[in-house]
Amino acid sequence: MERKALLLDSYGLVRKRTEAICYPLETEDFVVQPIADVSPPKWHLGHTTWFFETFVLVPNLAGYKVFDPSFNFVFNSYYETVGARVIRTDRGNLSRPTVSEIYRYRQYVDDHVNKLFEGSDIATALWDILELGLQHEQQHQELLFMDIKYILGHNPLFPAYSHDPVFDELMVVREMPIAFSEGAFWIGQKGNGFCFDNEKGRHLVYLDAFEIAPQPVSKGEYLEFIDDGGYSDFRFWHASGWDWVNKNQIKAPLYWHSTDGHWMEYGMKGIQEIGAKEAVCHISYYEAAAYATWKGKRLPTEMEWEVASDRIKWGHRWEWTESAYLPYPKFKKAKGAIGEYNGKFMVDQMVLRGASVATSKGHSRKTYRNFFHTDRRWQFSGVRLAQ
Amino acid sequence: MERKALLLDSYGLVRKRTEAICYPLETEDFVVQPIADVSPPKWHLGHTTWFFETFVLVPNLAGYKVFDPSFNFVFNSYYETVGARVIRTDRGNLSRPTVSEIYRYRQYVDDHVNKLFEGSDIATALWDILELGLQHEQQHQELLFMDIKYILGHNPLFPAYSHDPVFDELMVVREMPIAFSEGAFWIGQKGNGFCFDNEKGRHLVYLDAFEIAPQPVSKGEYLEFIDDGGYSDFRFWHASGWDWVNKNQIKAPLYWHSTDGHWMEYGMKGIQEIGAKEAVCHISYYEAAAYATWKGKRLPTEMEWEVASDRIKWGHRWEWTESAYLPYPKFKKAKGAIGEYNGKFMVDQMVLRGASVATSKGHSRKTYRNFFHTDRRWQFSGVRLAQ
Amino acid sequence: MERKALLLDSYGLVRKRTEAICYPLETEDFVVQPIADVSPPKWHLGHTTWFFETFVLVPNLAGYKVFDPSFNFVFNSYYETVGARVIRTDRGNLSRPTVSEIYRYRQYVDDHVNKLFEGSDIATALWDILELGLQHEQQHQELLFMDIKYILGHNPLFPAYSHDPVFDELMVVREMPIAFSEGAFWIGQKGNGFCFDNEKGRHLVYLDAFEIAPQPVSKGEYLEFIDDGGYSDFRFWHASGWDWVNKNQIKAPLYWHSTDGHWMEYGMKGIQEIGAKEAVCHISYYEAAAYATWKGKRLPTEMEWEVASDRIKWGHRWEWTESAYLPYPKFKKAKGAIGEYNGKFMVDQMVLRGASVATSKGHSRKTYRNFFHTDRRWQFSGVRLAQ
Amino acid sequence: MERKALLLDSYGLVRKRTEAICYPLETEDFVVQPIADVSPPKWHLGHTTWFFETFVLVPNLAGYKVFDPSFNFVFNSYYETVGARVIRTDRGNLSRPTVSEIYRYRQYVDDHVNKLFEGSDIATALWDILELGLQHEQQHQELLFMDIKYILGHNPLFPAYSHDPVFDELMVVREMPIAFSEGAFWIGQKGNGFCFDNEKGRHLVYLDAFEIAPQPVSKGEYLEFIDDGGYSDFRFWHASGWDWVNKNQIKAPLYWHSTDGHWMEYGMKGIQEIGAKEAVCHISYYEAAAYATWKGKRLPTEMEWEVASDRIKWGHRWEWTESAYLPYPKFKKAKGAIGEYNGKFMVDQMVLRGASVATSKGHSRKTYRNFFHTDRRWQFSGVRLAQ
Repeated sequence: MERKALLLDSYGLVRKRTEAICYPLETEDFVVQPIADVSPPKWHLGHTTWFFETFVLVPNLAGYKVFDPSFNFVFNSYYETVGARVIRTDRGNLSRPTVSEIYRYRQYVDDHVNKLFEGSDIATALWDILELGLQHEQQHQELLFMDIKYILGHNPLFPAYSHDPVFDELMVVREMPIAFSEGAFWIGQKGNGFCFDNEKGRHLVYLDAFEIAPQPVSKGEYLEFIDDGGYSDFRFWHASGWDWVNKNQIKAPLYWHSTDGHWMEYGMKGIQEIGAKEAVCHISYYEAAAYATWKGKRLPTEMEWEVASDRIKWGHRWEWTESAYLPYPKFKKAKGAIGEYNGKFMVDQMVLRGASVATSKGHSRKTYRNFFHTDRRWQFSGVRLAQ
Repeated sequence: MERKALLLDSYGLVRKRTEAICYPLETEDFVVQPIADVSPPKWHLGHTTWFFETFVLVPNLAGYKVFDPSFNFVFNSYYETVGARVIRTDRGNLSRPTVSEIYRYRQYVDDHVNKLFEGSDIATALWDILELGLQHEQQHQELLFMDIKYILGHNPLFPAYSHDPVFDELMVVREMPIAFSEGAFWIGQKGNGFCFDNEKGRHLVYLDAFEIAPQPVSKGEYLEFIDDGGYSDFRFWHASGWDWVNKNQIKAPLYWHSTDGHWMEYGMKGIQEIGAKEAVCHISYYEAAAYATWKGKRLPTEMEWEVASDRIKWGHRWEWTESAYLPYPKFKKAKGAIGEYNGKFMVDQMVLRGASVATSKGHSRKTYRNFFHTDRRWQFSGVRLAQ
Repeated sequence: MERKALLLDSYGLVRKRTEAICYPLETEDFVVQPIADVSPPKWHLGHTTWFFETFVLVPNLAGYKVFDPSFNFVFNSYYETVGARVIRTDRGNLSRPTVSEIYRYRQYVDDHVNKLFEGSDIATALWDILELGLQHEQQHQELLFMDIKYILGHNPLFPAYSHDPVFDELMVVREMPIAFSEGAFWIGQKGNGFCFDNEKGRHLVYLDAFEIAPQPVSKGEYLEFIDDGGYSDFRFWHASGWDWVNKNQIKAPLYWHSTDGHWMEYGMKGIQEIGAKEAVCHISYYEAAAYATWKGKRLPTEMEWEVASDRIKWGHRWEWTESAYLPYPKFKKAKGAIGEYNGKFMVDQMVLRGASVATSKGHSRKTYRNFFHTDRRWQFSGVRLAQ
Repeated sequence: MERKALLLDSYGLVRKRTEAICYPLETEDFVVQPIADVSPPKWHLGHTTWFFETFVLVPNLAGYKVFDPSFNFVFNSYYETVGARVIRTDRGNLSRPTVSEIYRYRQYVDDHVNKLFEGSDIATALWDILELGLQHEQQHQELLFMDIKYILGHNPLFPAYSHDPVFDELMVVREMPIAFSEGAFWIGQKGNGFCFDNEKGRHLVYLDAFEIAPQPVSKGEYLEFIDDGGYSDFRFWHASGWDWVNKNQIKAPLYWHSTDGHWMEYGMKGIQEIGAKEAVCHISYYEAAAYATWKGKRLPTEMEWEVASDRIKWGHRWEWTESAYLPYPKFKKAKGAIGEYNGKFMVDQMVLRGASVATSKGHSRKTYRNFFHTDRRWQFSGVRLAQ
């Protein structure tokens, strides 16, 4: 009975938090999609709701009538099993359904979810899906922060999102690296709390001795790389990173603007000064690796990071690792649409470890594996050095 | 004094009509830009206002303070003389300024325009610019209709725009062609009412004898072309038209949808049956020319059309002609930003003659030269045959 | 009997001239296709031969066996009636058939053509097709010169093609413009010598009074335009021309290279000095029109050019006109594949009048209508002013 | 002294083998570049020679005069340190230098290399560079086979390359998988023979228990996957693999052609029947992984492969592994241009293990790490299952 109370309570809190994140937005901000990676906020609101409608209500609540049959087409994302999906780059062209219709959709689905789960005889498997739906919505909360920042930060008026101190920058200090001896270590989830399938399958890895920095790299340190011509010297870059820099004329992290030789950046509070002691953020894997090469160091692997996680300071910036996103030895895909969750993305991406200011508390754990393509940087990504 | 009263009265009416066109829209509809050609409705609202602020108020109203200096960047269009412009395909990414801010902007500019022109001693040249601004806004009214139809007609929910009978389809009848003998004819504006610079420079042309249809082609006639395999036989098409058909998998006019072999179309009233007697609409130059070739006929030239205009039925659909958009013999560009109005587009486009349901009354005249690229069809374009 | 002797004699001469044009090439030069517009020289050798095989031999020579059935696929160009064609941009990927196989193909077809026409009872229609095939091959001779120049002129080794004085530059002198009074003039082919279908249909046009320069614009005059910032001032350009300049970073005519602020150009003899008195060449319509606008003049229309042709100096450079490539009033497409010759290109292109150093003598006539897209400049195109 | 004799002997043999590989080609085959990945054979001939000229002769042979200074621009590849390079996709546009000039270049460089090394007092470091140059040329020999097959196999005439039995297909048999127990294993080069920098840094890894197939997958087995609809069921594919399949309309391995429902394939001997017992070849990582998923298995990791290498049959097809191409724990980049050799490609690619029919004997070793992007398949790549 305890899990029931806990999950229904969580359900209310998580659903409300999503809406709270959108509270500072104007209606127009919900609609736009400036790049293919970014989804319009109203799409996140609808898609997370669609997840509960499709996987919880439709198969389990007798007599349930879907809110609007066309929403399956509009709010489905990548779940190929469940039907045709809107092409991602088209999401920003859809003015309808309106934001207020989507809020009504949320209310409708919430009412029915509560009604369903207030009943008795709910199977464990259904509680599991409810929990997965909440975890899923929490992931979209992080995406919401990323996407809102991108939308407002690429508007020529640079509107502020919020002055909440939660968006204060993380101050970092340069400390001596921590040394680890070589040996075999356990990696992956321990215990049986919730985790995603990609974290499961605890297994041994053998690591050579390594050293790792206790804190991430600061903006001041990163500025030294810029000032030393880091963006114009191919020797620090991967071949494809160098192509990316030149093709996109990259000269600094995302959101940095140089006016008269002075760097400013767009933050949640609007345009602001760059603080030399703040942790650098919004860099791609290519930039993280180039910075490390310039320093004569390297990035930690995800295994080194996990082994070191209890002795380093983390949680404010996702940290790029030198590990490709691949399945753990015992990885098994779940059957059906839910099985599409993670496995099919295990190629062509790199792992990030840690968490960020935008991460839901429950997602901040040392085994969590985040992943992005090497050129993406609208997530709150930083860098930590190893050797 | 009469022109003053007339123009100030027009000012109020034209400005209100623009807003009336947007009345049926939801806030979200103002924001999106599904293709590069289409501008978000809120951009039209701002841009037409920016025109009056920039060319009327700033140089002429002492002490005028611009509403927001950043708006010059956001709402400038192609006037390279006046400063940097937003790249067209980026317009759909701008959630700010909001729609209500733009309505405040309109009110602010209208108040100052009225204040300025209520004064005495207004130079004729300034009245001319005011008039040009109104003509310009009327052109954007037609664009608004085109863009709104595109936005709603490409939404999977197919929302209706309006059930006003003004959007009833034009019924056409097939009648015997009208014959004209060869000879020299006058072309271009006669008299001195307002007209655009591209209509000026009345001059003689020599035309061979020709025949022209009294009415445009109907959807029923066009369906025969489709059913006869018109879209899959290269012999009817220009080489570049054939490439366009194949690359874009074109099979029917824009807004036509085939469901189970039955053609429906999106109209201002939503999804509707196709009426065989209605004038065909939303076809490209390539389609118009291919249809004519299939019929063993051709399109009229713009000179033939103008000569015949008093004896044919027109005004509901713009009609493609076989004339490229080029300057008349005595064409002269005006100096400065206003001079960019037409001349720089006189290449790579074809002339359309007539008017459409979306055209402001004052723009419906026989010398008016509209122009689009050969593959565009979101304007209300039809076809008339000649031989 | 005279036409027979004349045509068979021409056949031998034209076919040999094509091969003579290729004489200075290395085998490797026959293969490459640096841009989609340029065809590999070996393709021209094969395609012109395929024309005679397909339209002359196959339907008329009893028992004729095609040289290689796969050649229809490889050497067909745009004749959609005759079967699948190689996509144009793929021509440069085909190493086989080899150059020597293609020369054997030419010999084989020539032998059979001579055998066929040595017989008696040849229908007039067949003589017409033979003549069209020769005219077609002469057009490809001009394309061969254009394509060879492009291939060698874009090789970092800049190999010379030939030191023949025929490639000496044309010297031009600035003279007073010639004035023509307004009136009606005849345009189009007179008499019944060979001409292409697009020149036929002699008809009257009415022209306003105009003036035209007796000689084309020189490189020295064009350099003044460059030095005056012509390529960086949007006011001189069509909107699409301005986009073209910026997107392609155009700063001078094709083949011009600036080394240390000094302009050189690639010519048929290799890299050479620019002569101020030489006629400017290898410019696009956009550049020709921008130059004229900068000078406060305009380009002549093709009708003005034809009317003035007896009193101006022309024949060394094709000259851009302000006329779009459109059908003459009485234009009729021929039936079948031959009918694809010209009509289907009558859209989106501009007319050039005159001839060039690369033009076969027989194609140098005052009614000849050449045509290219507004951004093309690998043809030998210049500019003449009118007003 | 022994190494000197051995290396000079190898030098002669390796250099001659490159030319022998090109022996069956026509001059035209040396020139073309049908896709960006494929280089024209003449470029390989020149580039491998340029390597010796640039890194061996220029810095070490007093008074050496480069064969042609422009060749550094033409034949440099990715070595950014050494100067501007030809953009890869432009290589197919360069008809000059001709093939025979390049053969003269090879002779010239070979003569000087022999002259240099016949001297005494050659430093060990220089012998190392000579050896690296030979290893480099052997890698290009494999690329030559791949590129030649692509060039001929995409010509509509499908010319055969060679009937040498070395190109006979590998026959495979399905045998029971071999089991390995979990434990720590050594990975990486042992001893001090030549190897590339990416194989160095012997280190321990901990592996879970696994099973691996003794032989690669056959074409007959792969056909079952095709016949079972493998290419049209998203559940077997990575998300980006599924996009690749749909965007490129992939339906079978590269070089397979379906005529009337019957599969044929292009091989070195021309178009041939598909042998059900032959090892499948020319598949991408996406296809290899999708096949394994369909079978309910997975690909081996590169560590598993290396551990198992002594007990499995390999050497005819490169085999995709489930390991991303990343540096070994102790990896260090060499200084200077030579240091660009491998490190900068260690991102966004997957490792292949084994060797192929096209691999030089000396490169066929169990620690060798080949790597390609996930969508490439013009290399001789196959698949082996693990679980």
